[in-house]
Amino acid sequence: MKPKTADIVKDAIRELDYHPNFLGRTLRRLETMKILVLAPTISNQFYSRIIKGIQSVAEEEGYHIMLAVTNARRDAELEYIEMLQRKLVDGIIFLHSTLSAEELSEFAASWPMVLANEIVKDAEIPLVTIDNQKAAYEATRFLIDNGHRTVALASAGDLYYSSTLRRQGYIDALSESGIPYDPNLVTNEGFSFNAGRRSAEQIMQWSKLPDAVFAVADSVAIGMTSVFHQNGIEVGKDISIIGFDNNQIAEYYIPSITTVSQPQLDIGQKAMELLMNKLEDLSCENRHIVLPHRIEIRTSVKLSKSET
Amino acid sequence: MKPKTADIVKDAIRELDYHPNFLGRTLRRLETMKILVLAPTISNQFYSRIIKGIQSVAEEEGYHIMLAVTNARRDAELEYIEMLQRKLVDGIIFLHSTLSAEELSEFAASWPMVLANEIVKDAEIPLVTIDNQKAAYEATRFLIDNGHRTVALASAGDLYYSSTLRRQGYIDALSESGIPYDPNLVTNEGFSFNAGRRSAEQIMQWSKLPDAVFAVADSVAIGMTSVFHQNGIEVGKDISIIGFDNNQIAEYYIPSITTVSQPQLDIGQKAMELLMNKLEDLSCENRHIVLPHRIEIRTSVKLSKSET
Repeated sequence: MKPKTADIVKDAIRELDYHPNFLGRTLRRLETMKILVLAPTISNQFYSRIIKGIQSVAEEEGYHIMLAVTNARRDAELEYIEMLQRKLVDGIIFLHSTLSAEELSEFAASWPMVLANEIVKDAEIPLVTIDNQKAAYEATRFLIDNGHRTVALASAGDLYYSSTLRRQGYIDALSESGIPYDPNLVTNEGFSFNAGRRSAEQIMQWSKLPDAVFAVADSVAIGMTSVFHQNGIEVGKDISIIGFDNNQIAEYYIPSITTVSQPQLDIGQKAMELLMNKLEDLSCENRHIVLPHRIEIRTSVKLSKSET
Repeated sequence: MKPKTADIVKDAIRELDYHPNFLGRTLRRLETMKILVLAPTISNQFYSRIIKGIQSVAEEEGYHIMLAVTNARRDAELEYIEMLQRKLVDGIIFLHSTLSAEELSEFAASWPMVLANEIVKDAEIPLVTIDNQKAAYEATRFLIDNGHRTVALASAGDLYYSSTLRRQGYIDALSESGIPYDPNLVTNEGFSFNAGRRSAEQIMQWSKLPDAVFAVADSVAIGMTSVFHQNGIEVGKDISIIGFDNNQIAEYYIPSITTVSQPQLDIGQKAMELLMNKLEDLSCENRHIVLPHRIEIRTSVKLSKSET
């Protein structure tokens, strides 16, 4: 820029009442040192642990994290993506996306983006996830292997892709054990405490209580347990429930909740690492990381005598 | 701006590879339609309910919310305030601040800001809070009025101003009832589940179990209850615990937690309304709103026979 032009720009800026630091710094280098994390909700403690993981890596690298809650709405998501396009942030980590694989792939080709937790099938974008289908298969197998024959599913329907995969894993385990899949044993209320409460209320209307329930989230397992308890049904004795996520409250609930443990901090850390790679070189390969899960045995599932 | 100057600015901008929408829109009107919410942590469900309240009003007004977690660090807080000064966001709602009253007053004189939840004494800034001291007084009175004589306090020390006020309310209630304040009956572990667990472990070392505990947060009450349960001490029978906040989990925990209910959604809504006033007219008065609390009676506190 020639000196004269620079002066005129500066005058124009002054006239427009711009904060000088803002333009000064942004003109010098087009980095904001800010990362945007998009989450569909933050009422679930699950998300705050992932965000903690993101933050731990971001801080080491001098980045600040900002979180936006999309409520899984496409218009909100696009509005936040525009912030990246306007260079108000340097990159985005999606903990969930409403966009199609094609749309995400196109955005990710031009801007630093990473998908973590809730994936979008076939999107060409770096991603971090667990194997939801396999984890759900193992959770259901765990119930069956402990002698539970009628196993219900407290599902979130197809609200997120992970719920679809978890239902598939549940069906896989039944099928492998020669138990026919019965859609009447499935509730579709969502991921919250209240979703769990509604599921338990439905189940209590059934002609017979199932032996066990695979709940697609700890919040659902806890909501169910509280309703069963209020109705004199003791979880871990009269009925077994396995959850998913391993939130802190699953450990501290009474009874403590047997659950599929997701490596929440690790999901966040790896997501931020993948984003760092993209910030350094947008053309680097789109790595897909699948992190390990494990069954955390506590007291909400009654174990058969052979087990232990 | 003269046409010629405008052209030169545009050329300079093009040369600098600015995204045109960004400058175009920002030059037209200096509004971003983004509000920044600063929270010290989001691991507590309490914050997510306040944020939900903020969001409900913001959405009606066409604003998007971004959340930043400061971990109660001053440098992080100042970094985010700079975003407002650079006009990357239109306003800030602090759910906690590390700044002094003088600093906050000075910032708030120049920029649209509101303090909600955790207040800073004497700051000249719009604020929304509950009467923490009175609420703690009532919680402690509730325990005493139900026949509990040795009442411990599971505190967070002076971590936040609210914890200081809650301890003062606890002392007020003891004093009014002629019970001497005994610092040996106070733990200072913080606001988390694990803080509650550590508090319970300490209390079990005491020569005699107290009749009741006032815990400064539901998370603390729940952490304590889980440890007591593991050690065969039944909360609501062998010992009473009252919490603070009325998070959803307090209702769904077993036993359900008697607690001081804070109007979390309302705190968020009012905070956003006060911010809207400042966005329209920065010189409008700094309103201080104190919202009502109430005791939510559940099963973690044993009631004396006269009660009921």
